[in-house]
Amino acid sequence: MTNAMQNKQRPFKTHKASHFLFETDEDGRVATITLNRPEKKNPLTFESYEELGDLFRSLHRASDVRVVVLRGADNNFSSGGDVFDIIEPLTTMTMPDLLAFTRMTGDLVRQIRACPQPVIAAVDGICAGAGAILAMASDYRLATPEAKTAFLFTRVGLAGADMGACGILPRIIGQGRAAELLFTGRVLSAAEGHAWGFYNALHERAALIEEAQRFARTLADGPWFAHSMTKKMLDQEWSMGIDEMLESEAQAQAICMATGDFRRAFEAFAGKTKPAFEGN
Amino acid sequence: MTNAMQNKQRPFKTHKASHFLFETDEDGRVATITLNRPEKKNPLTFESYEELGDLFRSLHRASDVRVVVLRGADNNFSSGGDVFDIIEPLTTMTMPDLLAFTRMTGDLVRQIRACPQPVIAAVDGICAGAGAILAMASDYRLATPEAKTAFLFTRVGLAGADMGACGILPRIIGQGRAAELLFTGRVLSAAEGHAWGFYNALHERAALIEEAQRFARTLADGPWFAHSMTKKMLDQEWSMGIDEMLESEAQAQAICMATGDFRRAFEAFAGKTKPAFEGN
Amino acid sequence: MTNAMQNKQRPFKTHKASHFLFETDEDGRVATITLNRPEKKNPLTFESYEELGDLFRSLHRASDVRVVVLRGADNNFSSGGDVFDIIEPLTTMTMPDLLAFTRMTGDLVRQIRACPQPVIAAVDGICAGAGAILAMASDYRLATPEAKTAFLFTRVGLAGADMGACGILPRIIGQGRAAELLFTGRVLSAAEGHAWGFYNALHERAALIEEAQRFARTLADGPWFAHSMTKKMLDQEWSMGIDEMLESEAQAQAICMATGDFRRAFEAFAGKTKPAFEGN
Repeated sequence: MTNAMQNKQRPFKTHKASHFLFETDEDGRVATITLNRPEKKNPLTFESYEELGDLFRSLHRASDVRVVVLRGADNNFSSGGDVFDIIEPLTTMTMPDLLAFTRMTGDLVRQIRACPQPVIAAVDGICAGAGAILAMASDYRLATPEAKTAFLFTRVGLAGADMGACGILPRIIGQGRAAELLFTGRVLSAAEGHAWGFYNALHERAALIEEAQRFARTLADGPWFAHSMTKKMLDQEWSMGIDEMLESEAQAQAICMATGDFRRAFEAFAGKTKPAFEGN
Repeated sequence: MTNAMQNKQRPFKTHKASHFLFETDEDGRVATITLNRPEKKNPLTFESYEELGDLFRSLHRASDVRVVVLRGADNNFSSGGDVFDIIEPLTTMTMPDLLAFTRMTGDLVRQIRACPQPVIAAVDGICAGAGAILAMASDYRLATPEAKTAFLFTRVGLAGADMGACGILPRIIGQGRAAELLFTGRVLSAAEGHAWGFYNALHERAALIEEAQRFARTLADGPWFAHSMTKKMLDQEWSMGIDEMLESEAQAQAICMATGDFRRAFEAFAGKTKPAFEGN
Repeated sequence: MTNAMQNKQRPFKTHKASHFLFETDEDGRVATITLNRPEKKNPLTFESYEELGDLFRSLHRASDVRVVVLRGADNNFSSGGDVFDIIEPLTTMTMPDLLAFTRMTGDLVRQIRACPQPVIAAVDGICAGAGAILAMASDYRLATPEAKTAFLFTRVGLAGADMGACGILPRIIGQGRAAELLFTGRVLSAAEGHAWGFYNALHERAALIEEAQRFARTLADGPWFAHSMTKKMLDQEWSMGIDEMLESEAQAQAICMATGDFRRAFEAFAGKTKPAFEGN
């Protein structure tokens, strides 16, 4: 977006979140969201679902934040929807309220996918239910050997069809493996998750957040407008035929070729310097 | 479906099949189909194709059977369409008859995918041609180290485009590996099949059927209505865009949240007991 | 196509290419395209893009060439779009010219996918940018341990959305791994590429071309009309639902069953001889 459009937006550097931690780097380029109810392994609540969705929605027009890191406090990612805060009330809701809830949780995934920032999940310890979904909905997943990811909806009598899992998970790890995880709710170990392409890399617990931040920084200092187009097209082409993909990418890449970032990258290459990307 | 609707259906416990074995557990929850012409490695014939399709279609409204195990007799899964019983007659058929045949075989896959029961393939020995397709069309695949799966249509001068293989196999093992198997007709070993996500697990020959039954039992004693929704949505979202997936799952999961099974699962969790799922 | 239609086409055996090498086997069945500006690691230029697209388009109606091998000269596959021949001019083009360029490069992928011949990429050394795309767009990929594949568009400030990569690469190696390669532009090693299903097999450098030719020969001497249908349907079913796939394959396979190749394959099987496929 133009600088004019960018400047209308409040900078995220000063943003304070209510139901989780929100912090940014000094220059605001990398934002880190920390789910932080560690005594319960960072569960999601009605309030944190909603605030997360709103936050990712507001990031759609952010000009400062370029990459988001998503993590949990104290060696767990997230235990998902809290059994007494969320599951219990759901068992007595009317159908319109149930649908409002499942649409709200689905909307969180929609906003994560639709925001231009690549989202990096740093997964340690428990990563269960809606927590597993948040990792799945991210663009890049790091984990520790202690990561235990489980799409455990079946354990409370529900379908694996939660927040897009039946559609998105098969594209990451294949239809057969996704079916197994969704039918059984079993734990995906870190080693399996890495071998199956769910995790992009594993790091020791002590290094996880630093590695996630380091990777985020690389993307944030790179051609972030082009990155946002890569993210958009990965989703946009999800169910296109091959001919439509090719025309879509012809247009998307022509847009990127018309940016100063492209020219700056070429000039830096030719001049053997490091390009400074401006997102325009 | 309601109990009223269920009771109109003849129980499957007493069902007898003509061209293969059909058996159920004592309580009828797990049905086992055994292809049983072991002297020819359990080939399919015109009659067994048709009866299998009819059986899976009738399972769509079954209230007793919750999971299906698919296996072959005597250490082979299935050698596929019999060369003299099927291939030879096809070489002299008219086009309308050929199309009727390919639609009938495709319909078997359609019924396996459309029935609400998860289908578990227990693959040992030869698993070739239409046999490989039956394994591919299942929801979960177990195999022995001796399993030899081959999509060998090319060996009789045909395309790999048989019973959905060009569309379904790539989603299980990836486009490049699927292309290789379909162009060459070569044997996929058990180890490769496991590494590629075609098989969910390998077991020794002596343990295969027991493991398949044990896994089937776990699903059958679990939230089987929710399982049927997981299966439905895995297929339903096959070619949807991400936004459509999220709305579809919001609806599908709201339906599951309105079931007594969901409430019973929560109550069992809260009371530290084991839930008894009723499928409603 | 019929022999009548085939004979209207100039034989490819005598074809000479201008911006790369084009050679065929003695009988013309296997064509080999060699990108051959080895001093610059076989980059693509405006001219070679266009000529490659035209060549693959003309192969759509070829009756002699049955399989294509794609390789690079002197231990590199291709360094992709040349930085000074292509990238520099692009930085100053008008939008219509940019779009004409991205459509032209996308059209090369379209022609590779649309031609009936399976395309086998033999990847050694550098395989970068548009070079990586050519490998990705092929049907079967062989590599040496020295192969270094990089979708490095991000390195020049562009999106990973180039020539279909955001749509095609995820279907080969999964959505998470594809996102990583496209966001980072990092090198995919031969071992990773093999483990992830990008490469079908690895061979020592000294054996690569011989193995690619040998594999191509197997396909060329096989049921090549059926192979062309396998290729077509792998693409055709890319974004179909399961029911539509099954009907499409019922039709596609019925067509193959109406060929003499099918009858000849059966007769050879019955007579324990080797079938000679005629493509009709």
